[in-house]
Amino acid sequence: MTEPLTIIGTPVSPYVRKVLAVLELKGLDWRIDPLVPFLGNDAFTRLPVLIDGDLVLSDSSVICEYLDELHPGTALMPRGAANRARVRWLEEFADTRLADVLIWGIFGPAITRPGIFKSARDEAALARVIAEDLPPVMDLVETMAPEAGFYAGDLTTADLAVAVHFANLRWSGVAVDLGRWPLAAAWIARIEAAEPLLRLNALGERALTVRYPDRAALFAEYGIALVDAGVSGREARRGPMTTL
Amino acid sequence: MTEPLTIIGTPVSPYVRKVLAVLELKGLDWRIDPLVPFLGNDAFTRLPVLIDGDLVLSDSSVICEYLDELHPGTALMPRGAANRARVRWLEEFADTRLADVLIWGIFGPAITRPGIFKSARDEAALARVIAEDLPPVMDLVETMAPEAGFYAGDLTTADLAVAVHFANLRWSGVAVDLGRWPLAAAWIARIEAAEPLLRLNALGERALTVRYPDRAALFAEYGIALVDAGVSGREARRGPMTTL
Repeated sequence: MTEPLTIIGTPVSPYVRKVLAVLELKGLDWRIDPLVPFLGNDAFTRLPVLIDGDLVLSDSSVICEYLDELHPGTALMPRGAANRARVRWLEEFADTRLADVLIWGIFGPAITRPGIFKSARDEAALARVIAEDLPPVMDLVETMAPEAGFYAGDLTTADLAVAVHFANLRWSGVAVDLGRWPLAAAWIARIEAAEPLLRLNALGERALTVRYPDRAALFAEYGIALVDAGVSGREARRGPMTTL
Repeated sequence: MTEPLTIIGTPVSPYVRKVLAVLELKGLDWRIDPLVPFLGNDAFTRLPVLIDGDLVLSDSSVICEYLDELHPGTALMPRGAANRARVRWLEEFADTRLADVLIWGIFGPAITRPGIFKSARDEAALARVIAEDLPPVMDLVETMAPEAGFYAGDLTTADLAVAVHFANLRWSGVAVDLGRWPLAAAWIARIEAAEPLLRLNALGERALTVRYPDRAALFAEYGIALVDAGVSGREARRGPMTTL
């Protein structure tokens, strides 16, 4: 009997939800240690961690391509070197330039930091990011958005990588009208409307506010097994480990 | 007759040399527009750009994997999903966390900024990066360094991605004793000692100080064809273009 895969990371993180969506699309057996990372850009991007037997991997893009290579059914990468390169580029763009604005520029200051430091959020700083940093990156997304379907035909990890950030944007409770970028908004809506992201976004939203004693019940409601991976977040993120 | 591939970017950039090394290892016909990027982290990392007919790609990792998929002779990725994941992780680590220290923390402040602004370099700031930021990242490299050969057996893009930064470190003219990390130093030396990186590092060092009127002669000496890609750096880095 194969040991289930273990993911370390909370589904509040867009990178974690991207990996969970890939696990679900591949029909794999997985369980989760929903560790909340230390505050900060650096820590957050190094979760999730995937444990597959002796192999321990970090970096959501590396994990997703590993899963796609190992389980080629329901391929999440298109055929052809040029198409694959475009998809890899889009995923990298989503993980970095798009996340810089939506996650580090908006969600972090709007939700994560005030939640941890119990401080009032800086509405003026948020308004500046929304007015100045968001439009150029959304203009780029608009040029990439397909008029129908997904970026490279069938759904890819890159479509998921783009869409996951927009749930965190909604949870940020800031006024952003995506109607200015109609092709982008429609593309994101198509990705979000399909399972498994629909369900994972709902879980992520509830995980954002769940109290620790109620956490197990929340995950059970979604049919997800919890596990204590027996490793601190700091250890899990340390590097390219081969064994824990 | 196939049109040669075009690279936009100067071989002073470690990311450009990584791509040029892959082109050479694959035995491909290429030419270069050695555009010097605007100053700054953002611009520098989006060069090189590869032009292959109608396809225009940025991001050195995306370009290298594209070339590896399209020209599978002299494979630069190992077999097996787990090994490939480890190699992708290492390349990402080299491009980001290692580069954060060696390129943005040392080479930029030591060479690029003083060169452009004609200002004295801040030796105290450099000494602080070398004392505080360099050791933890080199400690990690030391744990990853193989005792012989390369990271995954045969040479991969990830070995190149690590090694290219250390030429820029030498060009920075700062006192760093890599002897503190003997496995790492020996691994990097092995990668640098082999062609094509030996020759590309020599070209990069000379390109660092070549005057514009002498540039064509320098590249001709290395048998490399220059081309004006007819695109500004700003345009070349704009996004996931399919045609220029």
